[in-house]
Amino acid sequence: MSETTELAFKARELDAGDELAGLRSRFVLDDGVYLDGNSLGALPAHVPDRVQDVVRRQWGELRIRSWEESGWWTAPERIGDRIAPLVGAAAGQIVVGDSTSVNVLKALVGAVRLAGAGRDEIVVDATTFPTDGYIAESAARLTGCALRPLAPAEVPGAVGGRTAAVLLNHVDYRTGRLHDLPGLTAAVHAAGAVAVWDLCHSAGALPVGLDEHGVDLAVGCTYKYLNGGPGSPAYLYVRRELQDRFDSPLPGWNSHAEPFGMRPDYAPAQGALRGRVGTPDILSMLALEAALEVWDGVSVEAVRAKSLALTDFFLECVARYVPAGTVQSLTPVAHEERGSQVALRCPDAGAVMERLIAQGIVGDFRRPDVLRFGFTPLYVGFADVERAAEVLARTLRAGGGDA
Amino acid sequence: MSETTELAFKARELDAGDELAGLRSRFVLDDGVYLDGNSLGALPAHVPDRVQDVVRRQWGELRIRSWEESGWWTAPERIGDRIAPLVGAAAGQIVVGDSTSVNVLKALVGAVRLAGAGRDEIVVDATTFPTDGYIAESAARLTGCALRPLAPAEVPGAVGGRTAAVLLNHVDYRTGRLHDLPGLTAAVHAAGAVAVWDLCHSAGALPVGLDEHGVDLAVGCTYKYLNGGPGSPAYLYVRRELQDRFDSPLPGWNSHAEPFGMRPDYAPAQGALRGRVGTPDILSMLALEAALEVWDGVSVEAVRAKSLALTDFFLECVARYVPAGTVQSLTPVAHEERGSQVALRCPDAGAVMERLIAQGIVGDFRRPDVLRFGFTPLYVGFADVERAAEVLARTLRAGGGDA
Repeated sequence: MSETTELAFKARELDAGDELAGLRSRFVLDDGVYLDGNSLGALPAHVPDRVQDVVRRQWGELRIRSWEESGWWTAPERIGDRIAPLVGAAAGQIVVGDSTSVNVLKALVGAVRLAGAGRDEIVVDATTFPTDGYIAESAARLTGCALRPLAPAEVPGAVGGRTAAVLLNHVDYRTGRLHDLPGLTAAVHAAGAVAVWDLCHSAGALPVGLDEHGVDLAVGCTYKYLNGGPGSPAYLYVRRELQDRFDSPLPGWNSHAEPFGMRPDYAPAQGALRGRVGTPDILSMLALEAALEVWDGVSVEAVRAKSLALTDFFLECVARYVPAGTVQSLTPVAHEERGSQVALRCPDAGAVMERLIAQGIVGDFRRPDVLRFGFTPLYVGFADVERAAEVLARTLRAGGGDA
Repeated sequence: MSETTELAFKARELDAGDELAGLRSRFVLDDGVYLDGNSLGALPAHVPDRVQDVVRRQWGELRIRSWEESGWWTAPERIGDRIAPLVGAAAGQIVVGDSTSVNVLKALVGAVRLAGAGRDEIVVDATTFPTDGYIAESAARLTGCALRPLAPAEVPGAVGGRTAAVLLNHVDYRTGRLHDLPGLTAAVHAAGAVAVWDLCHSAGALPVGLDEHGVDLAVGCTYKYLNGGPGSPAYLYVRRELQDRFDSPLPGWNSHAEPFGMRPDYAPAQGALRGRVGTPDILSMLALEAALEVWDGVSVEAVRAKSLALTDFFLECVARYVPAGTVQSLTPVAHEERGSQVALRCPDAGAVMERLIAQGIVGDFRRPDVLRFGFTPLYVGFADVERAAEVLARTLRAGGGDA
């Protein structure tokens, strides 16, 4: 049988054996193949009705009473506790709120203060999603530190007695490379510095193990693999042992020990609450809370196993279908170095992605030359993967991005 | 006729002559009297359907394409321009996003940097809503400034060559006192310092005149008189002449000159965009955008005239109905010193407010002893005011907060 038929048959077999296949029905999807869940997760089917209840009843009818009666006030820590098991954290260490960028500032300034006097250097992943680098530069400026961009692999040999904090990405947003969180955290700790991790591209796609590996602080967004909706609030993890000393650069009234005391002097709340700032954006936040229910009964380990099977299979299909030499994978082959996406370098990648999207295969383009495909195990299947590779191959054979 | 009958009659007359009375139908209200719009504005009736469209179609169907096709990416500046006329600002100077607290940090650190070398003092309104004071303290610490809390009336005599920035509230959240924005801004400028105003309790209730009075930076929330919904995003105003030099402590990728260039070095965008940070919370933000449509065809001057008539009438009803000596108004009698709320000091205020709410009169309680009533001219009428005062008087005569 032809290669196409053979891999299509294999896809059917893999789908038939997929214990997570039924989860797809929890999402609103169409006939296309959505491989951009690493940018904006698909809509969980039950979320619209829940948002309507928040708007019509909680806001429209209860109005101000909802801060207590609908649990608005405690949403940041309650939703943080819902995210906690997905990133290997015990309860009481995560609060939801603000954007990832804002949480990076909290974490890095907080980390420098935790590191204590005599340490005046912030190390940042030089391959990071840019906002982390920009905010790290700002945090360095605000705390009188030097900023030192390094590739993650260079970190163990470079950190030392000057290093206050190290900000690393668990999964590289562009290449999909998974960095060694346990090993790098240990190296940072060996130098006496504070380890801060950005989980945007790993949380919800693979086990993180924040508590197990002794991560100090972490941030992440919730609109990718956690499907919280466009711009849904980010989160901040502060390891329990550090919470009493965590000293935020954004001590808003929501993190006060007695928020409604309206006291002129700031006294920080205990625990993860210390990471809160101002009034939480309730509509976005409660949409996220509803969205997290799709994780009920789902193990992150099963998600990780399927994620690797999906990306393995995509790489196999691409190798078999796509004309030799037209694309080059930037994503590591080794499982321990791979996140949940595949990045293919390709000439004229922007135009190629436009043509893929026009054919229902939705990934994204990252300049200058990367086709990025995200594999969300909750709703992407193996037949989707085979079809995406087949359309990609056909598009490239037809002239790639040429009209 | 009895006092009650007389004032009820007057209320009917005032309602009959109220050119804004028809706006009430734009909101979801019930049989009670909602005098807490200065904490959480009522739901505009058309907002639920708009939010559903954002969730079901824009997120659910278009998904990632909505960043362009549904105008998500440009929402912060587009909605800023919609708020601009309500606060007397020309377009291109306001962006929406983040909480008020986060925007206070941007504004104050930015203000210190604008003020330039040699100025090392931040003055903050000592009677401020507490979060402004906490964040001002943080901004001072991050920029190496001293923090000096002062009552607004003391500011003109106290600012000087050391003063970098002054953060003031346009309307005091507790007493409802309206501060002299033109005069105080002029005094701050006379000292060579940067004037930062918090508009949370004035925007949408009275004319602000940011451009006219030369305010440098301003922040405000959108969930009070602008009815954006619980925790809807705040906004930041940066006067056009200062934008090129505005240097944010939160230079996230959304404020980059080329956000999708993914460049390692930060280069700020031009204009108000420089106040953006991370990915905007689209659900909360687009609910706000829809909510702002209730302002179509409404003049802020007419709103202000009605607001003063409402608070005048409430004070009149309270004076006539409430037993002498049981309450004391903290809100100035002079129109030029009054915002859109009335604060009554009252023994056992917390319990009194609980009893009022149980009778459908919803205000709020501010410790230790304040009953706070907000008057939103878009949906509060004069009969509401008379009824609220009558129920308050009956409650106090019956023993106030006693069970």
